[in-house]
Amino acid sequence: MVNQKQNLASYLALTGGVGGAKLAVGLYHLLNDKVSFAVNTGDDFELYGLHISPDIDTLMYTLADKCHAQQGWGRADETWSFMHSLQELGEQTWFQLGDKDLATHLLRTCNLKNGQTLSEVTAHLCTALGIQAPIYPMSDQSVRTQVQTPGGEWLDFQHYFVAEQCAPVVTGFRFIGADKATLSPGLYQSLQQQLAAIFICPSNPFVSVDPILSIDDMHARLKQQSAPVIAVTPIIGGQAIKGPTAKMMVELSMPTDAVTVARYYAECIDGFILDEQDEYLAPEIEALGIQVTCAQTIMQSFEDKVSLAQNCLNFADRLNQWKRSA
Amino acid sequence: MVNQKQNLASYLALTGGVGGAKLAVGLYHLLNDKVSFAVNTGDDFELYGLHISPDIDTLMYTLADKCHAQQGWGRADETWSFMHSLQELGEQTWFQLGDKDLATHLLRTCNLKNGQTLSEVTAHLCTALGIQAPIYPMSDQSVRTQVQTPGGEWLDFQHYFVAEQCAPVVTGFRFIGADKATLSPGLYQSLQQQLAAIFICPSNPFVSVDPILSIDDMHARLKQQSAPVIAVTPIIGGQAIKGPTAKMMVELSMPTDAVTVARYYAECIDGFILDEQDEYLAPEIEALGIQVTCAQTIMQSFEDKVSLAQNCLNFADRLNQWKRSA
Repeated sequence: MVNQKQNLASYLALTGGVGGAKLAVGLYHLLNDKVSFAVNTGDDFELYGLHISPDIDTLMYTLADKCHAQQGWGRADETWSFMHSLQELGEQTWFQLGDKDLATHLLRTCNLKNGQTLSEVTAHLCTALGIQAPIYPMSDQSVRTQVQTPGGEWLDFQHYFVAEQCAPVVTGFRFIGADKATLSPGLYQSLQQQLAAIFICPSNPFVSVDPILSIDDMHARLKQQSAPVIAVTPIIGGQAIKGPTAKMMVELSMPTDAVTVARYYAECIDGFILDEQDEYLAPEIEALGIQVTCAQTIMQSFEDKVSLAQNCLNFADRLNQWKRSA
Repeated sequence: MVNQKQNLASYLALTGGVGGAKLAVGLYHLLNDKVSFAVNTGDDFELYGLHISPDIDTLMYTLADKCHAQQGWGRADETWSFMHSLQELGEQTWFQLGDKDLATHLLRTCNLKNGQTLSEVTAHLCTALGIQAPIYPMSDQSVRTQVQTPGGEWLDFQHYFVAEQCAPVVTGFRFIGADKATLSPGLYQSLQQQLAAIFICPSNPFVSVDPILSIDDMHARLKQQSAPVIAVTPIIGGQAIKGPTAKMMVELSMPTDAVTVARYYAECIDGFILDEQDEYLAPEIEALGIQVTCAQTIMQSFEDKVSLAQNCLNFADRLNQWKRSA
């Protein structure tokens, strides 16, 4: 049963990973159940038979205020007895499975096995965690991100991201199953209603946002939306706050700046939020036909997150007014 | 791959539950890899998709010196973060799944799903835990113990034992799947070789030992053994040290004494070890054609366990001599 609150949501945010979850905190604080989140599941994988959805978990734990504050993923006050025992039994432990976190994985796996969809399982977990905003996996079907290395080898995303700590050079990406996957019912329905805005959170464009855009004509659906689509830069002063976005851009021979990200999204966005320290790049982005606003996009405190979210809403208002007057 | 050490084992012990595991400690100390254990799996069940084998785990943890000393099952220094999180997610937590214990359940479940047999999974876990003696599940097929209540209802064993804390009156037992199950390869092979003795540990006759005896003509196979079969009393002074054995005997309208247990096993045992405080019952048991010896069967200390095990070996020697001279 998909959370019935979806009809209340008038904002939609596409997200994946830690950076996206930070902005989500701000949006959730300001909008409560008026915002829904569509989450990348290209990172999902199976470990010891458990279905693990890292980006959904990061968002859920973050919104439920149960996330480990310093690392930005996993549970606060986590314990590791399971992991140590598994190691004792001679098993690989490259992916950290905390004792608390395990409850989520096991319940998800069990309910999927009992025939629930990932959307249903996620809605159930969100309800149990007291989260008011709907969280939709991008799809209920399996989509698996892989990264290509210079030798042509394809690595599973978690292998690249966790086991190899993003060390390998990447030359490309693919999303196994994306050609057959359809949008989750919640995401599909939220795109059918009159939205006030769609935000692309400051997540990795290649491995957090692209998987979402790659399924079921999502890219085209965004283009067709009457609501403004606004991306928040994941690149500030030529660097990513966290994660391999900038490293990937170098390896893909892309200039490491916010303009490149804006250009990457150009066909489906109306607005771009640039960090204030990159204000000088605004004209270049505007030249692509994209409206730009500048804001403090580094989110350290709760106030930073709410402030950036408020800037997103204000920008959406301006774009809506501008669209109406156009 | 079944542990190759089976060929070294010249003693076999049938066991299930905490009482059996105590004697197993003594036998293992004296015999190391010269004893193999056939374990009740009628208690096995599935919880959240995990395959749980309580009696195998109790024996493994006990022999590996990783068992919780006071409770006699589960892991020492266990933590409960998983359970608390599962509870937080609104789930039932009638069966205690410790964080360390979970590693065993998850690895077992995963390897079973990958096509290993329960014997193979158990051998792998034993190796990882450094246990030298082979531990065989009684069968690689599913056998599920149920207890009947006066209303005629059948309760799954773990429901009766854990959720209901053995409160319901029992009127009977059945072992679902026992008619089709075959002995595990290790147990089967150990019965083919020349054993020095077979011990029936002081486990619950109805729900720990009977499931083993109920499959694949095991009862008849014991009768046919040339090695002496020796049962150790689970009833001392009319009471069970732990667990519902005495309570069940009352409910089944059986006299609550060691003679009743000896009579219960009469067709397949050659010897019976009676507690020294019940010595006066020896003639009654001998009248059944069963050899009797008395020993201190209450096992509190490590020394108690080794001492009783030594008494078992000595009694086996005497019975073997007696058989040879007969």
